[in-house]
Parts: sequence; structure tokens; C-alpha cells
Amino acid sequence: MDLVGLMEGKRGVIEAALERYLPDDGHVLTQAMRYSLFAPGKRLRPIFAILAYEAAGGKEADEILPAACALEYVHTFTLIHDDLPSMDDDDFRRGKPSNHKVFGEGLAILAGDALMIDGLGLVAQSTAPAELVRRALAEFSRILGAGGVTRGQVDDLYGVEVDPKFLRHVHLRKTALFISFSMWVGALLAGASEEVLGLLGRAGVFAGMGFQIRDDILDVTGSREELGKTTGKDEAEGKLTYPALYGLQRSQHIAEGYARRARRIFAELGSAWSRLVDLTDYLIDRRR
Amino acid sequence: MDLVGLMEGKRGVIEAALERYLPDDGHVLTQAMRYSLFAPGKRLRPIFAILAYEAAGGKEADEILPAACALEYVHTFTLIHDDLPSMDDDDFRRGKPSNHKVFGEGLAILAGDALMIDGLGLVAQSTAPAELVRRALAEFSRILGAGGVTRGQVDDLYGVEVDPKFLRHVHLRKTALFISFSMWVGALLAGASEEVLGLLGRAGVFAGMGFQIRDDILDVTGSREELGKTTGKDEAEGKLTYPALYGLQRSQHIAEGYARRARRIFAELGSAWSRLVDLTDYLIDRRR
Repeated sequence: MDLVGLMEGKRGVIEAALERYLPDDGHVLTQAMRYSLFAPGKRLRPIFAILAYEAAGGKEADEILPAACALEYVHTFTLIHDDLPSMDDDDFRRGKPSNHKVFGEGLAILAGDALMIDGLGLVAQSTAPAELVRRALAEFSRILGAGGVTRGQVDDLYGVEVDPKFLRHVHLRKTALFISFSMWVGALLAGASEEVLGLLGRAGVFAGMGFQIRDDILDVTGSREELGKTTGKDEAEGKLTYPALYGLQRSQHIAEGYARRARRIFAELGSAWSRLVDLTDYLIDRRR
Repeated sequence: MDLVGLMEGKRGVIEAALERYLPDDGHVLTQAMRYSLFAPGKRLRPIFAILAYEAAGGKEADEILPAACALEYVHTFTLIHDDLPSMDDDDFRRGKPSNHKVFGEGLAILAGDALMIDGLGLVAQSTAPAELVRRALAEFSRILGAGGVTRGQVDDLYGVEVDPKFLRHVHLRKTALFISFSMWVGALLAGASEEVLGLLGRAGVFAGMGFQIRDDILDVTGSREELGKTTGKDEAEGKLTYPALYGLQRSQHIAEGYARRARRIFAELGSAWSRLVDLTDYLIDRRR
């Protein structure tokens, strides 16, 4: 099956699972959570997790689906909070008004909180061996918390340094480590060896850096209609990005370099990992 | 040892552990987290967890201390977010300006997020058997998320019904279930039986309801100097509280009724649980 068809199939499974995990019970908190969770999204992180789980030999939906969906919960949490007026102050996301534009700031903050908390709870629902689940949760927290994604967001908002090293640091914390974790946790829950996990962690960071640089590029070249969020904002705000630092062409070149390094590791892992190669190629060529 | 001395000793252990888990690394995010985490607090939830762990026969600090401290992380997260202008809009907490008054809204939200995420990660650090840790995390999320504390905060902010049943519901979700969870998780990590855990869950809810009603009473009778937070606010805002609904005397009477029911269960559990009886008495007699 080609990658597009494969991704579509996985997306269907993920959407159905999300619907089971967060049905509409009529409560305004649930509605605020669902508004952002079910806005059209690529579901990249859960797809990464499922593909890595399958490549590592996993076969039980109940082991991986809760953790895969948790990645989408938590990704949505970061989007809702990042868009708040006191942070990036974005009015559009995933083709719709941002959560706080519809539900107000207080409820948007709480909807994000609940997605975060319930997301971690979903990981704990995985039927994989308890020691693997415990480890998944410890790592989840490490990647997302004060040393990870949250610190990346603080540095992005309040950081003062403007050099390539700092930019790499922010991209790494805000995006690449979370993408990497998505693959890593899939393989972990399938019982992958430490060696595979180590290689995968590195491949994921390379793929994630490529993904984020492509995101920077699309912010310059894409339209709001295509991307479903405010574009051109990085430049208008004089934000440090790869295109701003290196120009568009060289940025794409850097993204491709990262993708190449990721592919090399997947090749080392063997033919079971070929879908991850395809997905990595997709990441740095995508138009949205 | 009397209760005051016992609590002081436990508090020392907890403060030292918190200092180890969140040392000052000079980063502004860490400083915002530490500002609220190390503001003077009673550390009631960790103390509950440790006392229940010990009463249930637990003997390893590394099994309980990370989870106990996680309760304080997460409690602090709820305080920071609840105080935000878009929610309760409180300027004082624990005797100091609220987090957002010092660090700004964006950073306050992120400091809360990081305390929540790192708190759940701390639970995953417990050296108790992995299946118990997995269950602790699943329950932690259930108590705090969209069906628990977070929903309680939404209903408190946006709820329209003003009747005793609704008030009980908010107090239960916002406070009592979390207090109850604090005891429950301590006993769980010590390997307590299902029977003990079931009884303890109920006792904890009664103790927690007593605690919250006493809180409502202190909001009327206490001063900001004593409590370290804005007082008289419930009444000024026409908020539904026990004193508003029943008057001070009858409210204290209701709190004592809850405490009595908690004590009865602790007595049923046996003499090992006598410290929890003392602590419950303290909760409904305290002046701050």
C-alpha cells in the first residue's frame, strides 16, 4: 500500500479511538476539549507511534492505541496553550478560530489542562507490561515537562539569544524530541530492545528536526487556507526561524540532510522499518 | 509524638525531597515553578500520603516520597491556574503575590503546566512494583482530569445551579476526591488490600469534605495575614459556600459530621491508622 493510503487507514483507526475515549457528554469542558481535538489534524504523532509499534513487532491494538491517542491529546494541549493571548496570541488553528476565541481564556486553559492530564491517563491504560507502561510515562513526562517541550515554549517566548544554536535548541525541545518520543514509545510498548530504542531515539530527532524546518518553510510559502493557521507570522514578528537565518532553499537543504540521517538509521534497523522511511520523506516534502 | 511534632517532621522530609526534585538551575521556568512550590504551605496532601503509606505497612522512602511530592506539585499547579485573571483572578496566595502577578500570565500558565507534567512523572519514579505505579498514575489522572478536579473548577467558574447538591458536587471534585486520593495512593503503593483501599477511599472523601467546609468557614472568619490568601472573597462574589447556605455554626457542625464518619472508618481499619484520626481532627479545627 502507498503511504497516503496507509496514513489514511491509520487516521481512521485513530479518529474512531479518540471518539471512544472522549465522547460528547454535553459538558462544556468536554466540548472545549473536543473542539480542538477533533479539528482536522494530520495525526502524525499517533501514526508515528503505531508504525513504530508495528515495525517493532507489536500486534495488540490495546497496547498501543491508548498511548498513540495520548500523543494527540497532549499535542492538542500544547496547541491550545501556545495560542493563548498571553503566549503566541494566535486566532486561528487547524482551520478554525482558536480554542480561547470560542470558549474564552479560562475554559481554554482548563481544556488544555484536562487534555494533558487525561492524555497521561490514557498511556496508563495501555495493556502492555506494567514496567513498560511505567517507563513510557516517566519518559513522556520528561519530554514534555520543565526540561522538555514546556521549557522550549518558555525559551521561544522569552528567549533573547538569536543564534543558530539557540534556534536548534528551541526546535529540538518544542518539536523534535516529541516526534522522536512518538516513535520511541511505540517501539517501547512492543518490547523493542535497548539497542533499537537507542537508534530510534536518534532517528526520531532527525526526522523531527526536518519536520520543524519544513514547518518554518511552510509558514513563509503556504497560505492560511492550506495550513489552517495564521501564516507569515514568524516573519512579521521577526521570529528566529530557519528561513530567516538561511533562506528558503538552504533551509530545505538542511531539512533534507536531517531526513537523510533519519533514513540511514531506519535502513540499519532493517526492512520492517521501511514505512518510517516513507513517512520521513513525506514530512519534509509536504505542502501542509 | 503529638500530631504537631509529627507533621513538622514529615514536612521537613517533604521540603528536602522537593528541593532535590526541583533544584534552582537558574532558568526562569524553574524559578516560576519554585516560587509557588516553595511558598509556605501545609503540605497536607503529601503528609496524608506518607501517613497512609506507613499505616498500611510501607517502609521504603523511595516508594512513597516521589508520589507524595507529586501531590504537592499538582496541588500547586491547580493553585497557579485557579488564580489566573481568566479564572478566580486572585492576587495573593500563600502569603505572597500570585504567580502571574510576579512572572506574568504566560509564564504562570507554563509553570503550572510543567508542575502538572513533572508531577505525574514523579509518580512514575516510585520504586514500588510497576503494576501499582501504573494503577496510581491511571487513578491520578482520573481524579485530576476532565472527570475530576478540572471539571470541578469549570463548574465552580461557570456553573449556574445554586443548590446544596451542586455545592457538594463542586467541593467533592475540587477538593475532597484529591484529599481522598492522597491517602489512597499512599496505601496503594504500600500494597494495601482492595478492602483497605475501598474503605480508605470513602474515609478520604469524608475527611476531604470536612477540610473544604472548614476552608469555607476560614474564608469568612480568618484574616489574610493568617491564611496567606485573599479572604472574604467568596462572600463578596456571592459565591455558593457552606457558610452562605447554612451559616457558620451549622457549617462547622456539618464538617464535624464528616470528620466523625471518617474517624469511624479509620477505627475499623485498626490502631495503625490512629494518626489519620488525629489528622482528620486537625483538619476541621485548624485556624489556617
